[in-house]
Amino acid sequence: MRTVYLNGEYLPETEARVSIFDRAFLMADGVYEVTSVLGGKLIDFEGHLKRLERSLNELDMPKPEAFDELLDIHRELVRVNDIDDGLIYLQVTRGSDGDRDFAFPDPETTAPTLVLFTQSKPGLANSPQAEKGLKIISIDDVRWGRRDIKTVQLLYPSMGKMMAKKAGCDDAWMVEDGHVTEGTSNNAYIVKGGRIITRQLSNDILHGITRAAVLRFAREAQMEVEERPFTIEEAKTADEAFVTSASAFVMPVVEIDGASLGDGKPGPVARRLREIYLEESLKKAI
Amino acid sequence: MRTVYLNGEYLPETEARVSIFDRAFLMADGVYEVTSVLGGKLIDFEGHLKRLERSLNELDMPKPEAFDELLDIHRELVRVNDIDDGLIYLQVTRGSDGDRDFAFPDPETTAPTLVLFTQSKPGLANSPQAEKGLKIISIDDVRWGRRDIKTVQLLYPSMGKMMAKKAGCDDAWMVEDGHVTEGTSNNAYIVKGGRIITRQLSNDILHGITRAAVLRFAREAQMEVEERPFTIEEAKTADEAFVTSASAFVMPVVEIDGASLGDGKPGPVARRLREIYLEESLKKAI
Repeated sequence: MRTVYLNGEYLPETEARVSIFDRAFLMADGVYEVTSVLGGKLIDFEGHLKRLERSLNELDMPKPEAFDELLDIHRELVRVNDIDDGLIYLQVTRGSDGDRDFAFPDPETTAPTLVLFTQSKPGLANSPQAEKGLKIISIDDVRWGRRDIKTVQLLYPSMGKMMAKKAGCDDAWMVEDGHVTEGTSNNAYIVKGGRIITRQLSNDILHGITRAAVLRFAREAQMEVEERPFTIEEAKTADEAFVTSASAFVMPVVEIDGASLGDGKPGPVARRLREIYLEESLKKAI
Repeated sequence: MRTVYLNGEYLPETEARVSIFDRAFLMADGVYEVTSVLGGKLIDFEGHLKRLERSLNELDMPKPEAFDELLDIHRELVRVNDIDDGLIYLQVTRGSDGDRDFAFPDPETTAPTLVLFTQSKPGLANSPQAEKGLKIISIDDVRWGRRDIKTVQLLYPSMGKMMAKKAGCDDAWMVEDGHVTEGTSNNAYIVKGGRIITRQLSNDILHGITRAAVLRFAREAQMEVEERPFTIEEAKTADEAFVTSASAFVMPVVEIDGASLGDGKPGPVARRLREIYLEESLKKAI
């Protein structure tokens, strides 16, 4: 039985409950972060904390009282749940004032809800999926316009995963105005002639913490990076493709809408970036 | 202290709690309905039940076990909470399988969550707001593309209400591709030369239960109805405007982006439709 954190308490997971009036439950008024754990240490923790702060600011959501203790809470959850490899999920909501109203509750009297829980994933960095690569379908991107804020409005990404599953694939890339925005829970990349192409930051996509690190490492390794939108047609004829996320790190893509990329196996750029990312991130893990 | 309904139990409101793993809390994977109560009776109950069923179908969300008892549950909540005038809020979520995953949980082993609670609003049908009318601002519509499904993804509508409040107004109309979609929690209408103009049904707007009834009553009363998109510019020069929703019924709009409509008071068409709607709905209330 996992121990989870809820508003200052460490609780058995089955006892962690929130009010039916919590604004995340009633209005999707919450933001989240997922941090990876490798060898008991946190990957890119500072980046996730910074993005959390940005999400809260963008939504005028108050910081939870325990904001400055988040590193300690993460570490305590790793300890008590004996997590070697895995994930820590963190969610902040605008809390509950005991009723339902579209207007935000008064932050003086309504405290945000803070929840954290772990997911143990032994061998997370050695996923067999990284050897096989992902098969991707494309779907319309019908999400809201502020994807740069990491809110819990994940119904469509969740539907997208189900569409992919139904099609016998692993994930979906979302397309808006003819161009790929991102994957359902990751940033999307193609590689052409050694050049790494990925959509530039804007309100259209999540500002991936892993994305920032991978692009930095790529540039440091003298790889060419081009930040611009690309189409599914361009992706289908790319040399290779991959996605990045906090939990999948760098994950090769081998098929898009039924078209095999290259020889249908993970490409060298994705493999190399995965190696560098894991190596460098582990060095800085805390 | 209110009594609320949660998964088969009638509970004091402060004891009604859901798992932190509930999919509405983690992923906005839930749908809802709000039914008005006037004189202890339910307004348009059948319409709300039918739309709930449609929302569930569109999302492949299982029906809660108590689906066929929903009328009884509504009535019991009205009784135990002694509601004369007010609202009944109902939410169904995809439930909790005890962890977090983008993929839907197996419906064979994970039951949906069903929550209902009341809000007492004495004199709901005689709101002083209906005499004054609403002041509206326009904002960009950045919501997801399936607004015909009544999901709990209400963060942006909630932000819209706060933007209106900040501007000293009552509500916001959302604009997409130059045309008004709807209000933050209501359908939007203008009146020109006696003609009632409102956007036609599509995935862009909620299929309002009150909207359907009001348009039917308008046609029965020989009023002309035109279902088409309109711009904010057209709205600002309209003779009058109004919104409809289950909780506001027909509510006049007297100002849009600072421009007064007509003489700045609720117009005759909105007043008349409000009267007819309340009269006819009360006749059929159950």
